[in-house]
Formats: sequence, structure tokens, C-alpha cells
Amino acid sequence: MAEKTWVVTDTAHNIHGDDLSIDSRVLPVHGGDYALRNRILRGGRQDGVQVIEINNGAITLVVVPTRGMGIWRADCQDIRLGWDSPVRGPVHPQWVPLGEPSGLGWLDGFDEFVVRCGLESNGAPDFNGHGALVYPLHGRIANRPAHYVSLHVDPEQGEIIVRGVVEESRFHFAKWRMTSSLRMKVGQPSFSLSDTVENFSASESSMQMLYHINFGAPLAEPGSKLVAPAKQVVPRNDHAARDVAAWDQYGPTEVGGAERVYFLENHAQSDGRTRTVLVNAKGDRGASVLYNVKQLPCFSLWKNTVGTADGYVTGLEPGTNYPNPRTFEHAHGRCPKVAGGASISFDLTIEAHRSAEEVRRATDDAQRLQASPVSVSSAPSAEWCAG
Amino acid sequence: MAEKTWVVTDTAHNIHGDDLSIDSRVLPVHGGDYALRNRILRGGRQDGVQVIEINNGAITLVVVPTRGMGIWRADCQDIRLGWDSPVRGPVHPQWVPLGEPSGLGWLDGFDEFVVRCGLESNGAPDFNGHGALVYPLHGRIANRPAHYVSLHVDPEQGEIIVRGVVEESRFHFAKWRMTSSLRMKVGQPSFSLSDTVENFSASESSMQMLYHINFGAPLAEPGSKLVAPAKQVVPRNDHAARDVAAWDQYGPTEVGGAERVYFLENHAQSDGRTRTVLVNAKGDRGASVLYNVKQLPCFSLWKNTVGTADGYVTGLEPGTNYPNPRTFEHAHGRCPKVAGGASISFDLTIEAHRSAEEVRRATDDAQRLQASPVSVSSAPSAEWCAG
Amino acid sequence: MAEKTWVVTDTAHNIHGDDLSIDSRVLPVHGGDYALRNRILRGGRQDGVQVIEINNGAITLVVVPTRGMGIWRADCQDIRLGWDSPVRGPVHPQWVPLGEPSGLGWLDGFDEFVVRCGLESNGAPDFNGHGALVYPLHGRIANRPAHYVSLHVDPEQGEIIVRGVVEESRFHFAKWRMTSSLRMKVGQPSFSLSDTVENFSASESSMQMLYHINFGAPLAEPGSKLVAPAKQVVPRNDHAARDVAAWDQYGPTEVGGAERVYFLENHAQSDGRTRTVLVNAKGDRGASVLYNVKQLPCFSLWKNTVGTADGYVTGLEPGTNYPNPRTFEHAHGRCPKVAGGASISFDLTIEAHRSAEEVRRATDDAQRLQASPVSVSSAPSAEWCAG
Repeated sequence: MAEKTWVVTDTAHNIHGDDLSIDSRVLPVHGGDYALRNRILRGGRQDGVQVIEINNGAITLVVVPTRGMGIWRADCQDIRLGWDSPVRGPVHPQWVPLGEPSGLGWLDGFDEFVVRCGLESNGAPDFNGHGALVYPLHGRIANRPAHYVSLHVDPEQGEIIVRGVVEESRFHFAKWRMTSSLRMKVGQPSFSLSDTVENFSASESSMQMLYHINFGAPLAEPGSKLVAPAKQVVPRNDHAARDVAAWDQYGPTEVGGAERVYFLENHAQSDGRTRTVLVNAKGDRGASVLYNVKQLPCFSLWKNTVGTADGYVTGLEPGTNYPNPRTFEHAHGRCPKVAGGASISFDLTIEAHRSAEEVRRATDDAQRLQASPVSVSSAPSAEWCAG
Repeated sequence: MAEKTWVVTDTAHNIHGDDLSIDSRVLPVHGGDYALRNRILRGGRQDGVQVIEINNGAITLVVVPTRGMGIWRADCQDIRLGWDSPVRGPVHPQWVPLGEPSGLGWLDGFDEFVVRCGLESNGAPDFNGHGALVYPLHGRIANRPAHYVSLHVDPEQGEIIVRGVVEESRFHFAKWRMTSSLRMKVGQPSFSLSDTVENFSASESSMQMLYHINFGAPLAEPGSKLVAPAKQVVPRNDHAARDVAAWDQYGPTEVGGAERVYFLENHAQSDGRTRTVLVNAKGDRGASVLYNVKQLPCFSLWKNTVGTADGYVTGLEPGTNYPNPRTFEHAHGRCPKVAGGASISFDLTIEAHRSAEEVRRATDDAQRLQASPVSVSSAPSAEWCAG
Repeated sequence: MAEKTWVVTDTAHNIHGDDLSIDSRVLPVHGGDYALRNRILRGGRQDGVQVIEINNGAITLVVVPTRGMGIWRADCQDIRLGWDSPVRGPVHPQWVPLGEPSGLGWLDGFDEFVVRCGLESNGAPDFNGHGALVYPLHGRIANRPAHYVSLHVDPEQGEIIVRGVVEESRFHFAKWRMTSSLRMKVGQPSFSLSDTVENFSASESSMQMLYHINFGAPLAEPGSKLVAPAKQVVPRNDHAARDVAAWDQYGPTEVGGAERVYFLENHAQSDGRTRTVLVNAKGDRGASVLYNVKQLPCFSLWKNTVGTADGYVTGLEPGTNYPNPRTFEHAHGRCPKVAGGASISFDLTIEAHRSAEEVRRATDDAQRLQASPVSVSSAPSAEWCAG
């Protein structure tokens, strides 16, 4: 039996968000039980937010089409993928003031496990000579709704796919259309994202993409560590530089502390594939982020080890660039150009590791890529850090 | 029979705003007839606004959970509590551009009887050295929706309670959660607000609160007066200073005129309780605002005696501070600090006075608190007025 | 039988947007078949947008009450009135960040055939001395929802009318209320707009209005031309000046090209009525914009002959003024003053021309108004162009 498809949003046909539940009783598949549900949330700042809840038998996961196909949270048994943000989400973009003069309005909606930053810009707020905002923090794509969303189940392959199309465009300015596919095999503790971003203008334009993948407890906790095949590590600023020796370690909660960010370049296989692994303090729980350095050459590690109430969290962030203001990144040649009508693609996979053995296999794999010893800079670099 | 509870909004359980009507036929109570209704408004800028309409037999009143549990309007027989704003409300916050560079976007939604200003800031727009907005006019809390709302009726006490929880938070910044209770006794021409504001960060932070309580005709009209046990009265600016002798009197309509604001400190009982009374020209209608100077030491009197079409209105505004830009108030020590995980509470009561006798009793009560003659400044003071 | 009325939105009575269909079977009229439909769109950025779809037998047309009674698109047989914007609309105003510091947020919702610019301001973004935004591009009226909408059918006259009331107001600032009527005769390839704008403040204020009427293919294409009884033509800037000789001609697609704008004053009949005609390359399809120079003395011609994907489009734009920053227009006396409580009215008609014969009759009519030869300036003028 071939793949079966349900269109849950299609603005061209005025279809949107009706309650829909699909599961193994309705459509049995190879590999075990699963369930899918599409619905619209109500009340507070979640009013009108479309969510797609997936249980593939190993992971439960919530996709949010209204927030640019982000992944709100995921759970694999007792492993929470995601974090406890002080922001009560998922937040409808109508409450997220991206254009606020501070450029920090994006933070009002930030509570997701996987949030895309882009597509015109993805970094720190960028201001003009008058101090007026030009590019807001982390860009707009996470606060744009999909206008087309479909669910797919392939019974033979035991595969679940959620596809969404989101546009970020402005008349006279950039015109980007992202088609995102999330894939899960029934019973597997992992999922993949495959995003194609089309420049639907007739003219060439440059873009940015960064996957802001966020973990709190139990994966990010005092004693956790990151295993990454780093070629180069550079602290973003002096504050991060002071603790650069422990760049891959997670320290105790620092109430009122400031975040630390490290910019990495990672080794990879010859085809570009690489792996970074977050491991808990006991070494028996973990998660990998697998990506391709040919698509996403830059990796940012965000360590925000503040009080639990304020969000003890780390971000593993593969990107086309480092999340400096766009003007800086553009000047340093880190904004990929896409010809009019052409596309650029990004693929990544996230795996949960449920035992010391699964963690060991993942970290072995990451360490195997360590072709040369890591070079750790003691200070920010002019090439990578806007300061 | 114990208190009965209806949860009308609870985002954690995806409950929100379904039509609900409760009244004395369904649940008889001590004290007389009453009615409660929860619903969502539709169309124009009110589309999606949740309102709770209460009739306690003496007052009809509309609470707006979508606008931070504000009170849209109230009526007690022929006494309208509230005013005729040129803004057609209640306005859904999606139409209120708080982040507009002018800092004045809040005015687009301003038509309420009781609107809270706060919680991070509550005053005039505050700009940085580049002229870029930092704190918008009157803060954000009135344009944040409650994520939890419940109705309570206590048959024995003849009491109606509306409870709502609203958050104002931003990742990396302030994290405030307000739990508000509005209480009315069936048959009584008054109601009380009891608000607890929790700092749900792990770190100490400072906040601001101001209750912007607004009256138009028939209580505010040419010839009306304010009776307040004022210790000190200071005009906010030179325009207000020119008429400071008549600070407690309401003059004729001035088409195109400018507002006048006076900053007061009021005398109070030893436990902090005090009362201010607005009285109409004939002295036979009035309303009192009762509050606690230990919680709300500052009182601002706003007189906007413009053409009726533009909103002839006065605001009686007890606050933690005067509504200057936050930076000024903070420098003058008027932003209460709240430890991480701790709370601060505010209580106030509003009474309608339906006869000359009721007015007299209220003004007598206010005048009894006048422990010393009022000191009226002829000019703004550097300590209280940002200029 | 008298005119029949259906109220589809009335916030005072909490009526809004319920599906309603009216047609010749339900209510037969003089002149032929027709159909009317009111509904709310769902999904993506159109979620919650109210549309009124009209088919008068000759033209199909979509009115958008949620976007200030704009006309999304219209079709007359194979003549598309409107254009292909890279913006996927109709866009709910909640996605249009008018207050973004750039002042260009309006462009996020721009895909309409007829969009009103105004009412406080209608031109290019206007900034204060700090570089902070004061008046955003093209004003706010197109992103304000109607709070009252009614449909009317007059069986004897064979007339369809859509009426809507939209307010643009801010407490302490301008207070405008527009009552708009769109009229169509059944079977006729034309429609009329009649807008009355009331200043509902007690004080005099000045306003601006511009009808941004946009055509793409097949009416605007390489080889198309504008026939207008121009008295004076002034290029807005040096870029437009270089091609001023071809001001009324449409050239080939210029991928990545910049828009050209020409400011015109048109001759008119003694009662003020005038006509401009857009004609396709073959001369067998066209459209006229008829308006009154006593109401709308300024006419802007916008030529945006960029790649199709980016929106090859022209705007025929009668206005009270030229769309420079408001401060400039006000200084040049081109913002009509309206006394408190008074109104100002605007009328225009749009006709589709379906054959060479219909085109010839329209262009003859326009050319008949050409009382004197056109004066074409070779450079921007200080009086009309803000530079």
C-alpha cells in the first residue's frame, strides 16, 4: 500500500486545522503502533496555534506549523528533548513583536526544542547608523505560519512525514519559501528534518539559516558535556573566553549568570556529515545532532546555565554562519547566495540515546571524526566574532 | 453549600472561552439575584476578546481576561463607571502596537474603566540615548491575555469572584505572573480587586504597578470635584502648574486642550488604608477608590477635560510610583524590588455612591483622614517630576 | 421591491462574518444573474480575514473588510484587474508590522488591486530627527478592520452595494471614520467607490487619502501605455527622470530594476471629473480609473516593471497629495483640513474595457480632456518631490 496523505492546511482551498487523528487502528503500518493528531490550540497566547502531535512508538513530538514548522517539544521515554522556558508556549506569532525597536521581541515566543533562525537573517539584532533596527534577533521564519501542511504515512516503510510550506517575503525585498519535511520511522528514537529554501524572486539574494536546538534537564544539567569533533573553538566574547577551557562542560546553576557562546568549526566525513553529542552527567542519557558541514559549516554552542526558573538550557546550533548581526556575517562571506528561482537545502537528524551503551556508540562515532586535535582560542577572533 | 467553581480558560487543558451563563436560577445565593456570563466577542478589533459579564444586582461589570483582566466598563443604576473613549473597544491586543517606535501604541486600545499599568514599567515612554524605545507607555500587562480564568460563586456568602492569571515575561528579562481576583457581594454597589504579582525568576527584579481608573460623565463633568486626603500635591509640568489652585476641580470642556496631571501623596489610616472620592457637580453621585498607601504610595490625578468626542475623562491612579519614564522612577527609588520566587500584593476597592447621603458619608470618611492641611506646590518638583 | 439589506458584521451586536450567500435564485433582480458571498478565510496569514465575493455577471470581485474595505482582486472575463504580488494574500493585519522601525511593514500585506492609503498619512515613511519612525509607509487604514459591514441589493435598479465602516483613531491623536460604499450594476463591467471620511474629533485635523490601484498582466505588460489628460508630469527622482520621455509607456521586464514614479496633474471637466486609461500592448484590453480632481487633485503613476516573480505592476494613484513623507506634503499645503465633526468625500469609478472598440471610446474620452499640451519636467521639482 502506497503512502497515504492528509492535507490539514491549504490556504488556496481554505482548509485549515480541523481536528484529525490518525493511528495504527485506522492505518496499520510496519514497525508498530503510532498516532498522529492535528488540532488548533485555544486560550492565552496559544490561541489559534496549530499543532501536530506525533507518537511514533519511541518518541512523542509536537510540530507547530504556526511557528514556522518548529518543534515545540519531544520526549523519548524519560528523556525530554527540549527545555523549561520561562515563556509559556507555544506562542502565537501575533504576540511576538519582531519589529520592536530593541530587536529582541523574538524572545517573547522562545520556548521550543527546535526553532529555525532565518531566513533573511538569523543572528543578533542589527541596527543602522541611527540606532534603528534593521534585522531583528534570529529573523522571522519561526514566527511565520505554514500556508500548506500535509501528513503522510507510508505503511510499508513504517514512515511518518509532516510536510509544511512557509514563506518569508516582503514586496521589494527578499522572497523565501521553505518546504520542510520531518520524517520519523515508527519505533525509532530519532527523526530527520529536510528543508528546501527557494528564492522565489527573479533576482539573486543571500540568506541565513541556523537550527537552534535546545536542551534542558535531564540532558543539560551540571556535569553534562558536549562531545563534538571540533577543529576550532572560539569564545564569542570576553565573558565566554574566561571559561573557554571548560567550553564543552556544563557547570552548576548560576542564578543571574550571563550566557556563554562558543563558535565551532567541526570535523566531518568526506561527504560533510558530522555528529555532536550531548551527554548527561551520569553518561546514560544523551542526544545527537547530526548535520552536514557542507550545508551548515558553522556550529554555535550556547550555554545558558542560569537558575532553573529562568531556563537552564543549552543550544546546539548548526548554521550557515555564526549568529552575529547580519551585516557582519555578510561582510565575512557567510551568507549563502541563492540565484533567482534556485533553492538551497538543509538536512539534519536528531537521535535520543537511552542508555550508557547508546551514548557510548554515539560519542565513539563523534570522536572518530576528530581528525586533528581541537584548537581552542583564548579570545574572540575578529573573523568570527562581531564583538 | 461551598463555593462553586467554573474554569473558563485553562491553556494547559486547552479550555477557553466557551459560552457559559450562570445565574440565580441555576445557583441561588444569599443576597439576591445575579448573573454571570463568559463569552468571546466577534468582529472588528474586538474579534477574539474574551469578556466576563457580571450583574450582581447593583452593578453590571465587564471583565476582560484578554486585556490583562482589566475592567472594560461598569454601571450602577444611572452611574456609569468608565467613560466614552474615542477608541472603540474592547480592543484585542493584536491591534495594539506596544513596540511602535513612538512608544504610544498603548493608546490604540485605551477605553477601559480600570486598566492596570505595569508590570515591568508603567509610565511615560522611555527611550535610550539613540532615541530608541526601551519601555513603552504604561507597560504591557493590559495587553497580555490570561491563560487561566475561573469563576466562583459562594452561595452562603453571596459572593462572586473572577480569578485570572496573566504573565508578562520575556526570556532573559523580567518574569512576572499576576493572579488577580475581583470580588463582589451580591446586591452591593462595590467591588474589590486583589492582585498578587509573583517574580517567577530566580533573581530579584524591580516592578511597577499603577491602577488607571477612569471616569467620564456623569461623575466627571464640569463642576465635579475630587475629595482626597492629600498631604502633598505637585503639578507634573508647567501646564498643570498654571491651574494648580484648582487641582481638585473639574472645569468646562476645552476643545483641543491639553491634559493636566497632578502627583499626590495621600494621608491614610495607620494600616495604610485611604480613600479618594470623585463627586459630580450636583453632589448626588460619586465613586470612591479605596487603596493602601503601604502598597501604592503614589497617587496620580489625570484630568483630560477635552471635547466630549475626544474623551472628557479623569483618571484616579494609585501606583507604586508616579508614571514618569521608568529610568527616572528607578533612580528615585520608586520601583519595588521583589526577590526571586517572592510576590507583592495590591488591594483596592471601588464603590459607587448613588445619593447625596452616600456621597456625604464617603467624603466625610476621606476628609477624616486629612491629618494636616494639604501642601500644594506651585511648580513641578525635581524629585517627583521627570519634566 | 425596495432595497434589501443584510448586516454581516456589527460589533455592537456581536455579529461577524457568518457564511452568507445571496444570489439571483434567492432574490432575482433587474439586469441578470449575480451572486454575493460573505465568509471568513482560514489558515496561514489569511486566517480570520473576512471576504465578500461578488459576481455581478460581468465582473467578479473580492472586497476585504478586514483590510479596510480594500478590493483584493477583480476579474472581467479574461481581464484580470489586480496583479500577481509575491505576497500571498489576503493578509490579516496581525501579520503587518506597521510600526516596524523601517516604516516598511505595510509591504508585508501588499497584494491588492485597490488599496487605500491614509487616513492620517499616505506616503513614504516619515522619521523624526532621531531617525525614529513617525508615519509608516502608506498609513494605517488598509490594515484596520471594518466594525460594521452590510450588503444591499436593489432589485429594481439591479444594484449591489457593499458598505463598510472603518475607524483609524488613537486616543489623544487623529480620529477618522470612513464609511465606504462599493456599487455595481448587475451586468456592467464597472464599479464605483464612494468614501466619506468623518473627523469624529471635536478639533480640526488634516488628513490624506490615496487610492493605490494596481494592475499587472494582461493590462500592464511590455508595450502597454497609459492615456491620461496630463497637464503636468514630474519625475519623482533622478532614476524616474532618466526615462521621463517614456513616462506613459511600459517597457520590458527589468529583473532587479528599480521602480519609477511620476507625479501628474490631470486636466478635467469643469465639474472636476477626469479619466485615465491603461491600455494593453495590442490595444484590445484596458481599464479606466475615473475620479474627481476637486477631491483628488494629485495623481501618481507607479511603474514597477521588475521580474514577474517580483511583481510586474503599475499603480494608478489618485490622491489628495503626492505620496511623499507627510511632513513634506503638509508643508506644501496638500493635506486637506477637516473641521471637528465634519467630513470629506471621495468618489471613483473603475471600468474594464473588453475590446478595441471599448478601449477606443475610453481613450477618446480621456484625450478630449487634454485642454493643453502636456508639460513634462526633465527633473524632480522642489514643490512636488521630497527627494
